Amino acid sequence: MADYLLGIDLGGTNIKIGCFDKELNLIGKTSVPTGSEMSPEAIVEKFYATSNDLLSDNGLVLDDVCSVGVGVPGIIDVNTGVIMACPNLPLFRNVPLKDMVSARMGKPAIIENDANAACWAEYVNGAGKEVNHMIMLTLGTGIGGGIICDGRLIHGPTGGAAELGHMIIELDGRPCGCGQKGCVEAYASASSTAARAAEAVEGSAESSLAAALKENGEITCKDVFDHADNGDKLAKEIIEGSCRALGLICVQLANITDPQTIVFAGGMIAAGDAFLDQIKHYYAQYIGGLYQKGSLEICFATLGEDAGIIGAAALGLTAVNN
Amino acid sequence: MADYLLGIDLGGTNIKIGCFDKELNLIGKTSVPTGSEMSPEAIVEKFYATSNDLLSDNGLVLDDVCSVGVGVPGIIDVNTGVIMACPNLPLFRNVPLKDMVSARMGKPAIIENDANAACWAEYVNGAGKEVNHMIMLTLGTGIGGGIICDGRLIHGPTGGAAELGHMIIELDGRPCGCGQKGCVEAYASASSTAARAAEAVEGSAESSLAAALKENGEITCKDVFDHADNGDKLAKEIIEGSCRALGLICVQLANITDPQTIVFAGGMIAAGDAFLDQIKHYYAQYIGGLYQKGSLEICFATLGEDAGIIGAAALGLTAVNN
Repeated sequence: MADYLLGIDLGGTNIKIGCFDKELNLIGKTSVPTGSEMSPEAIVEKFYATSNDLLSDNGLVLDDVCSVGVGVPGIIDVNTGVIMACPNLPLFRNVPLKDMVSARMGKPAIIENDANAACWAEYVNGAGKEVNHMIMLTLGTGIGGGIICDGRLIHGPTGGAAELGHMIIELDGRPCGCGQKGCVEAYASASSTAARAAEAVEGSAESSLAAALKENGEITCKDVFDHADNGDKLAKEIIEGSCRALGLICVQLANITDPQTIVFAGGMIAAGDAFLDQIKHYYAQYIGGLYQKGSLEICFATLGEDAGIIGAAALGLTAVNN
Repeated sequence: MADYLLGIDLGGTNIKIGCFDKELNLIGKTSVPTGSEMSPEAIVEKFYATSNDLLSDNGLVLDDVCSVGVGVPGIIDVNTGVIMACPNLPLFRNVPLKDMVSARMGKPAIIENDANAACWAEYVNGAGKEVNHMIMLTLGTGIGGGIICDGRLIHGPTGGAAELGHMIIELDGRPCGCGQKGCVEAYASASSTAARAAEAVEGSAESSLAAALKENGEITCKDVFDHADNGDKLAKEIIEGSCRALGLICVQLANITDPQTIVFAGGMIAAGDAFLDQIKHYYAQYIGGLYQKGSLEICFATLGEDAGIIGAAALGLTAVNN
């Protein structure tokens, strides 16, 4: 019986593969390095070989697998399963990955943007398990996202939806890597939070972070949170700025797709409840009263780093049912 | 043969009813006054009597009608067809209008928010006819909206989606009737555009609008456009501010649901192509380059005031097919 699912998270550095039963219980997982210079054919071959190893380690064979889902850090035409572009894997341009994976593995396959796959994981098996309308924002180097309306991922015609990090919070504000100015990603991502702190310290604002910068040559986002915890005023203001930006984004999203839950994920959520409470505080401050959107739940993701493989596996199953 | 559709647009001042064939060609339409004090039962009775008159005037009877759609200016649970609240019709609170209409008319019925109904009309038969992903913004006293993703209206769990006028463009900015501050509606709706002009003139900014204010006791949105056309500097700046706000909103929406087309509707579009071009100018300025969203079409609605009845009629047909 083909009762198992493979979920693959293709990253610029590693390929993670997980094997799950149909209730999304993890049977086993593995990780192998990717090379950014690898051809699509070589990567699909690596999917095949690594999956077989993983299955074999868990007493299974490919015949036990009913579907394969793959999350990819790029722009995907979900209807055709073609990767249009993938910044960290430059050889993936107009690559029909779905057909290639399906042919090599001999299984129905689905290809999805990695942020959407992680969002889907939280939706089916994590923080959004009880709702039908959810948005996830992943706070890392950038800010990625996924939007689920009435149980469906929103893709747009060309996979360009849910670029939530590029919502503008300040006209003509901080420049963003995307070419826009004032994107929320330029203020409230982990790296932008750290960058704003470093700029303030270099601009000679008084802060205990100055010593950290001198000692380590850089300030990390974790430094900013740690120094804020220890009472540093500048660090607190920087964190507050990030929370204000994220609270504002929640207001915009509440007014656009009206989610029941907004889930924050990524490294920054390690900062814990004080961080979450501050985002909620600004949401409550900005949302006003009339539209009764006070019932929106804002929370942290629960699946951690496995979200990518869980979501890919869960989406793979939808390829079987179509 | 039941080959005709009824579309009803329930407003605070008038009830408009249109009869259409299944290709959405208008057979006939009529309008009767609403009273805000009217009970739901009385209004449904008025739907029934007025529809019968309209049909009879066009040589038809109720047996020729296959479905009834109703657009309502309120918050609706689309799954149940219950009106939760309706600011201009205070007696409509938790009213099962769908069941009431269906029972009285003896037809499948559907109830939809009026802004969504107008958006649906442009989608099926107007400016969005050729696309699957569309957003409409109606610029009137306020700014209403509708969002269509992959051929479906986005409602949210409680009909609270597409409150596009309440996207915040300026933190702690101009107060909005909704309780928030800095909503786009507080800057770029027809009445806010006029209000910003009046405030500037009262604040003694130099402008030919001062004479209009003195003569008429008020400045209308049309005055602002007319004086801008005649070269008044302040009027031009006020219009530019509205266009900047609307261009920014287009950027936010492009990054969230990635529509193919954003359609502007409402009284303000009478200002014509110069107004549209200025919105497009700010969109192009703010969108940046990387995400290739330059292909977004920004245009005006084509159906005018009949959009409400056309959309209601078209949605009614979906009640038959379900």
